[in-house]
Amino acid sequence: MLKKIEQRQTRKSDVIEKIKASRLELSRLETQIKEAGLPVIITFDGWSAAGKGSLISQVIKALDPRFFEVVSVRNPSDTDRRKPWMYRFWRAIPMKGRFTIYDRSWYHDSLNAMMYDGLGKKAYKRRLSDIATFERQLTDDGYLIIKIFLHITEEEQKKRIKKLEGSKVTAWRVDDKDRYNLKHYDEFLETYDDQIKSTNYDYAPWSVIGANEKTSAVLDIYEVIIGSIKGALEAKKDKKKYIPKAQFETVSPALEGFNSVQVPKLKDVDLNKSLTDEEYEEQLDKYQEKLFKLQNLCYQKKLPVIVCYEGWDAGGKGGNIKRLAAALDPRGYEVKPIAAPEPSELARHYLWRFWNRLENDGHFTIFDRTWYGRVMVEPIEGLTPKDRVDQAYREINEFEAQLAEWGAVIVKFWINIDKDEQLRRFTERQNTPEKQWKITDEDWRNREKWDIYEEYIDRMTELTSTENAPWVIIEGNDKKYARIKALKTVIKRIEEALDKK
Amino acid sequence: MLKKIEQRQTRKSDVIEKIKASRLELSRLETQIKEAGLPVIITFDGWSAAGKGSLISQVIKALDPRFFEVVSVRNPSDTDRRKPWMYRFWRAIPMKGRFTIYDRSWYHDSLNAMMYDGLGKKAYKRRLSDIATFERQLTDDGYLIIKIFLHITEEEQKKRIKKLEGSKVTAWRVDDKDRYNLKHYDEFLETYDDQIKSTNYDYAPWSVIGANEKTSAVLDIYEVIIGSIKGALEAKKDKKKYIPKAQFETVSPALEGFNSVQVPKLKDVDLNKSLTDEEYEEQLDKYQEKLFKLQNLCYQKKLPVIVCYEGWDAGGKGGNIKRLAAALDPRGYEVKPIAAPEPSELARHYLWRFWNRLENDGHFTIFDRTWYGRVMVEPIEGLTPKDRVDQAYREINEFEAQLAEWGAVIVKFWINIDKDEQLRRFTERQNTPEKQWKITDEDWRNREKWDIYEEYIDRMTELTSTENAPWVIIEGNDKKYARIKALKTVIKRIEEALDKK
Repeated sequence: MLKKIEQRQTRKSDVIEKIKASRLELSRLETQIKEAGLPVIITFDGWSAAGKGSLISQVIKALDPRFFEVVSVRNPSDTDRRKPWMYRFWRAIPMKGRFTIYDRSWYHDSLNAMMYDGLGKKAYKRRLSDIATFERQLTDDGYLIIKIFLHITEEEQKKRIKKLEGSKVTAWRVDDKDRYNLKHYDEFLETYDDQIKSTNYDYAPWSVIGANEKTSAVLDIYEVIIGSIKGALEAKKDKKKYIPKAQFETVSPALEGFNSVQVPKLKDVDLNKSLTDEEYEEQLDKYQEKLFKLQNLCYQKKLPVIVCYEGWDAGGKGGNIKRLAAALDPRGYEVKPIAAPEPSELARHYLWRFWNRLENDGHFTIFDRTWYGRVMVEPIEGLTPKDRVDQAYREINEFEAQLAEWGAVIVKFWINIDKDEQLRRFTERQNTPEKQWKITDEDWRNREKWDIYEEYIDRMTELTSTENAPWVIIEGNDKKYARIKALKTVIKRIEEALDKK
Repeated sequence: MLKKIEQRQTRKSDVIEKIKASRLELSRLETQIKEAGLPVIITFDGWSAAGKGSLISQVIKALDPRFFEVVSVRNPSDTDRRKPWMYRFWRAIPMKGRFTIYDRSWYHDSLNAMMYDGLGKKAYKRRLSDIATFERQLTDDGYLIIKIFLHITEEEQKKRIKKLEGSKVTAWRVDDKDRYNLKHYDEFLETYDDQIKSTNYDYAPWSVIGANEKTSAVLDIYEVIIGSIKGALEAKKDKKKYIPKAQFETVSPALEGFNSVQVPKLKDVDLNKSLTDEEYEEQLDKYQEKLFKLQNLCYQKKLPVIVCYEGWDAGGKGGNIKRLAAALDPRGYEVKPIAAPEPSELARHYLWRFWNRLENDGHFTIFDRTWYGRVMVEPIEGLTPKDRVDQAYREINEFEAQLAEWGAVIVKFWINIDKDEQLRRFTERQNTPEKQWKITDEDWRNREKWDIYEEYIDRMTELTSTENAPWVIIEGNDKKYARIKALKTVIKRIEEALDKK
């Protein structure tokens, strides 16, 4: 495929005029992008010495620098290595109406990991599947993704690297990887070819650009970008997902299947389970001590632990989290309370704020409410269109699968109480001065929607209880029973994970 | 001082009851902290093996884990070293109504840098002065800072380290620094003593706690925390700055003076300066090329460059930034547009969001509007009380001094136009469809307040033009002249800084 890419040698004067016109046009389109709230991602990959840096500099001359960010993807840092591999790419996605330009992308990163860093073939394939997911999730959310591969011939690459090496000012810019890239040109040619072919998704196809001659390359890049933006703006107006015209045959990545784990419907949960004070005190000490020891092992083995708390208002999440946290060394966990999103969060894919909150491996991240708001409060309150909510079940399963792939233990609790118990607790809160801050009008309003919530919760647990991340319904009418069950569940899941390590 | 600290050996049963009572009391106070929006910082420093980790675990049992964060201060990472040294402490400050608990603080970090990392005496002193500033700025803003030093005797330390080393499970927790700390007990005793004495500020005094016996230490810590919180809540009610009762004599750190650099008043600026198109094109090419070369040197020499843009609405900031940015390799700069703060930003000290946006050394950070909103729009719109605005001039000078100390070149532009020119540009925007998004009702409202703005701007440039960070008024009626002047100024300042390296 790459071999057939044309390397143009155009008369410069002609091209320069066209570039000026394109720059003006892109600059005009930028206003429309802001108005429409279109988030744009542009990635630049390609051969060593293909001129990514200088071409990006050329291209962004058309853009208002207050509305884009260029992210330079180098080897992952020590901190990057302690997060899921897609973490650093997720973090940098743009807000609506803005651009992120990746100077080398997840493609380069994966290929690099395979070629230099010992990543196996199977893990590499797994990464490509994560990429398909990432790009589908973002484009489903209205993101425009433009993927550019800069192709140069072996001869040209040799010439450029020699030239860079020949001058004191630029010699430092050539490293061993560049030389290796040149030395194994044919091998890389095949690998790039494979990568491009297998990831040429219809929603985010590749544009391969002959970059032997930089000035025509600039023009070609502008044409791709302008065409895509126009198409995406048009599609947005028609409320359709944008499917660009593709340079090569596209592929449709298979959607991942998930092994589901059965969960009872809420109405079938026996809420009469309870513990005596003595049983509680004894077991609390025992399991807290056990968890503390396990935390040490998690830290040493770099096992990430993610505990998700969902449940009815006044279900007892706070007290339950407190007992779990009290068992842990405070340097090794963080509780993330999830409230309404901030403006910068609302302006991005809804999973962004959760990616952004992941702690390093070896640590516990405890979410007090989670990404599941997407399929409960958001549809019930009409905050999110139905089609995006329908997609969310799969997106969430995919998100959790990526966390599991990273090695995380994922424990998800629904703390269940019945309607009478909730009323009792609401009333108690209302009548106790120190607890009044915990009860709001919204709680009462939500209570009126009990039945519709129950319906959504049952659907949620049915569609998102997977082997990676099964739901656990906690019988919550008795707080003591609920706390012990949560502790025991976390312990069991960690022990299972450590056994497999 | 430390030698005189009492090491209690209390009857445990008595203490345990009291601890339970304190825990309950702190838990009750937490509700008041949330309601009052009091942000609380607690730092734990002290000897190696003084039991910081386990004491923190004990103390936080009283707290709702959704409202605190424990920050573990280890050796600075590679990224930490590329920011101002206080950066990582600033980043972690709590929001209103929440706690941050630092497991070792800026004190430990500085002492460590001096004892193990080659930080000179003078630089160490400089750090203590940064600390005084940090703690004063936060307490002026209503933060409560509780500084705890855990003191153990040499004999006790020896016993503990031996015990840790003696067991396979815990031996890894003892490192060379711990052994060094023990071996040089007397030297450290003196250094800790000096540090505590010289940083015992009245607004953030030390509490030194004898920790040979852990159970009494827990109780002592609770007493300190509870006393401080009560005092701070009381002071907050009375709208006064809280000055705690101190265990030792307090010191008042000298306030830093700043060498001011004169700036003309806006009315004295000659706005008739201009360039022809030819002059402009020629100089633009020349200076952009020069700046591009300098950027390379900045990167190699790890020089941070911070460019701040302020100016009248329609003054031409955007176009000016664009010409500056176009000169730069996009991997080495970022433009930070500053709009209204998000809720999480409003809930912290106002400088937090700017600390948070600093790029690594070697990079350019370009602010499109800045922290100077604090002394312009905030007082004019009545968003901030007068006393906090009055303090802001000094706080800003201190902030910039810390950036300069880190090595940053700080360039601050006020782009000046006159009232007629603004009207011309507003009208043009209103009449040009692509530019209409740039003009809002707020712009017209601000225009009505031109005179009061001018007054505040003159005061701002007078009070915050320092040798570290002088203001440059840019004659902006002619956009071409303004762009070239900005480029030339940035170049000159970088050249001066590189000369000194």
